[in-house]
Formats: sequence, structure tokens, C-alpha cells
Amino acid sequence: MYKIRHCPLSCSVDLKLVLENMDDFKNIKPATFEEIINISHIKEYQKDSILYYENDIVDNVHYLFHGLVKVYKINKFDNEVIVNLLHNYCANESNPPLIDYHTFLSNNSFFNILCLENCKILSINVESFKEIIKSDPALSLNMLNRANKIIEEQEYIININMIYDTKSKLASLLNKNYDVFNMLSKKVVSQMLNISQETLSRSIKKLKDENIIGFDNNKKIIIVDEQKLRSIL
Amino acid sequence: MYKIRHCPLSCSVDLKLVLENMDDFKNIKPATFEEIINISHIKEYQKDSILYYENDIVDNVHYLFHGLVKVYKINKFDNEVIVNLLHNYCANESNPPLIDYHTFLSNNSFFNILCLENCKILSINVESFKEIIKSDPALSLNMLNRANKIIEEQEYIININMIYDTKSKLASLLNKNYDVFNMLSKKVVSQMLNISQETLSRSIKKLKDENIIGFDNNKKIIIVDEQKLRSIL
Repeated sequence: MYKIRHCPLSCSVDLKLVLENMDDFKNIKPATFEEIINISHIKEYQKDSILYYENDIVDNVHYLFHGLVKVYKINKFDNEVIVNLLHNYCANESNPPLIDYHTFLSNNSFFNILCLENCKILSINVESFKEIIKSDPALSLNMLNRANKIIEEQEYIININMIYDTKSKLASLLNKNYDVFNMLSKKVVSQMLNISQETLSRSIKKLKDENIIGFDNNKKIIIVDEQKLRSIL
Repeated sequence: MYKIRHCPLSCSVDLKLVLENMDDFKNIKPATFEEIINISHIKEYQKDSILYYENDIVDNVHYLFHGLVKVYKINKFDNEVIVNLLHNYCANESNPPLIDYHTFLSNNSFFNILCLENCKILSINVESFKEIIKSDPALSLNMLNRANKIIEEQEYIININMIYDTKSKLASLLNKNYDVFNMLSKKVVSQMLNISQETLSRSIKKLKDENIIGFDNNKKIIIVDEQKLRSIL
């Protein structure tokens, strides 16, 4: 169902080395860096385990070192609404995504977080982290950049759910990352776009009929006319 | 249609005094404060004037000193979707709301901004502002707090539009600020909740039938059972 590659959990991670290369911790003082290390730990989660449920008390912020997590809410009709999918092949090779910025705002989680694959996740104690941010100007600027990225992501979610019609929603997801699209089942894509699977199939057919997308030999979607795709947004 | 009180434009505003009391500028260095003053100016806008349209180039961030503005987008069906309504009675008496945080992220505006009343608006040159933020740790921490508030507001918008059913949407707006609700026409409320006016009327009736809300002698909504209202969220 999810064909995202990622390192085996046995892949060795040097916490210090990974943290040194993370955007959130660049240019900070050596003493700040040591403090962050002291409140950090790495934990492994088995596939299908829940990191936490909505409204759970959460004491840590989490970065995804390896694996794939689903960030979702349940609406009033008991349907799952996927707000984000985060994946990381290997912390040694890329800047690990922050899973739950909301933890900086409140100890009660805003989302449900599920591990869709075996995951390796960094936890940092949030109360201590917030104090450390105040003590190092470089770190507070990094976290301001991080907050700005979260705002941009949320703007994308608002566009998808309030402004776009179904065709634009689909075009937007394909334009943002059609690799991710090909990794996911139609069920998951429809949950991400908040539409039914039938509507998704119709929209894919429409884009194909207009020669905007096509399929390769492995039945994976390819983008045929990128300019036309962008014009829909 | 909009019965929000605000000071007349003739109300005198001491820029220095107002800025000193604003959350975004508290605890900053005197030199930083002077730099902010130097890139700030106040401008008056007549009722129904557009501050800017979506995708316009914007060089300034704006704070609302007096008046009422509508922040909105147009969806693919040419319907107006109101993302926010900001109002400020008088800058001398309250912390003026930031109208357009997005300007920190991109020079292209994300929203349309319309003055629903005569407005007095503070403009601060965004490129200079961004440089000043980097030079004063207290200011960067203030702006991190500001970004966190924006993230919370956007979470509210996401809940309203993706998670809640119509009844919960309405309950959420009433719970957040039923004064604002009473100030607005049904058309504007329905645009804020992204539902039709008929659906809005039905939902109001439902909440009344359940004795959660009622009407006072001026036909304004009053909350009868706050606990029951919150239980819907």
C-alpha cells in the first residue's frame, strides 16, 4: 500500500552528527547544542503504532528520522481526514521533518499521529526546548523560520480545502509532489484531498483526457504538460 | 450591515505611544524601536477600498489601528470565502491586529484585503523589518510568538473547514466570539463558515430548539447553555 523506501531501523544514527546538520540547530552556540542533546532521545516505533491521539497530553516535540507517519484528524462523520504525510528515508542523508509543531503551542495534541512504517523518531522535551529557544538568538531565529514554514504548509491546506475545486486539488498535489502521489493508494490520496475515491478517479481521467497527465509502463502517473498543470492552480 | 463601533478617523494617534504598547515591540532595544518608527507610516483608507488583491506585490506588513477589514479569497466557483474579519476600535486602547503575516513569507499577497469601514492602517516596510528582526533577539522572540498565534488561527480555520459539521462550525464561531456574530449579516457569517445562508438559518434554529442559544429583545443571539455549546465542538 505504501511503497516509500526508507532505511532499516538497524541503520546507525549518530545523534550529534544528525543534529549538527539540521536546519533548526544551525549556527547555535556550542552550549545550546549540548543542552539540546541532553533533552533528546531516539525511539523506535513499530509499523501501525500510534505516536499519540488527538487531545493526548504530549511532553515532547518529535522529528522523523526514518520512516513514514500519517498526521490526521477524525471529522464529525467519523471519517479520517489526512492533514499531512511525512516521510524520511534516512536522517543521515536529509533534514528530518518536524512532526508536531503544535506541541510548542499546547500540551494537548491537535492531531492523531500514526506510524505507517517502522519509524525512528527523535523526541525533545518541549518545556526545556522552549526555555532554550529564549536563551539563544540564533535558535530563536531558526524556530521563527520553522514557524514560517508551518504557516506556509497550513496555507496550502487551506487552499486545498477551501478554495480549490476537485481538479485543482488534484493538480496541486501532483504539482507539489507527484512522486508521493504514486506511492500512495487511491484511498489515502482521496483522504488527503477530502474527496471520495470515485471523484478522484473521475478527476484523474479528466486530466488524462486533457493530455495533462499520462501513465508509464508501470501504471504510474507521469506529468505530460507541466505548464497546463500549473495553469489549473 | 456591519455594526462594529470604531473611533472616527479624526481620532489622534501617537505612533510612538501606540508602538510602545504593542505586543510585537515590547522589550526591544531603544535603537530597534527607532528603526521601526523610521520605516512606519499611518495611512487612512476609505470604506470599501481595497488594500490589495490576491497575488499583488506587497512591500509592507500592515497593522489595523482603526476600523474593520475583510480577509478573503475567491474560490474556483467565483464565490468569496472569508478567511478572517479583523476589527479594532482604537489603537490607543488595544493591541492592533496584524493584517497580513503572509507578507513576511512572500511579496505576493495570499489574500484579498478589503476595508469594510473607514480604516486607519499602519504600514511597515517588510524587507527592512525582516532585517531588524534578525538584529534584536527580543524582537525575534516577539515575532516567534506572533507566528505561533497565526498558526493557532490557521488551525482554527482548518478545523472549521475540514473537521466540523455545520452545527459544530456555528457553535465554534459562537463560542469564539458571539459578539462578532451579532455584528455581522447572515450573508457574511455564511461566507465565513463556507455554507449557504439557508443552511445557516437551519443550524441556528436547531441550536435554538435544543435550548443552547436564544434571542434577546433586540433579536440578538444569546448563549443559554454554554456547557452544551462547548460539548458540540
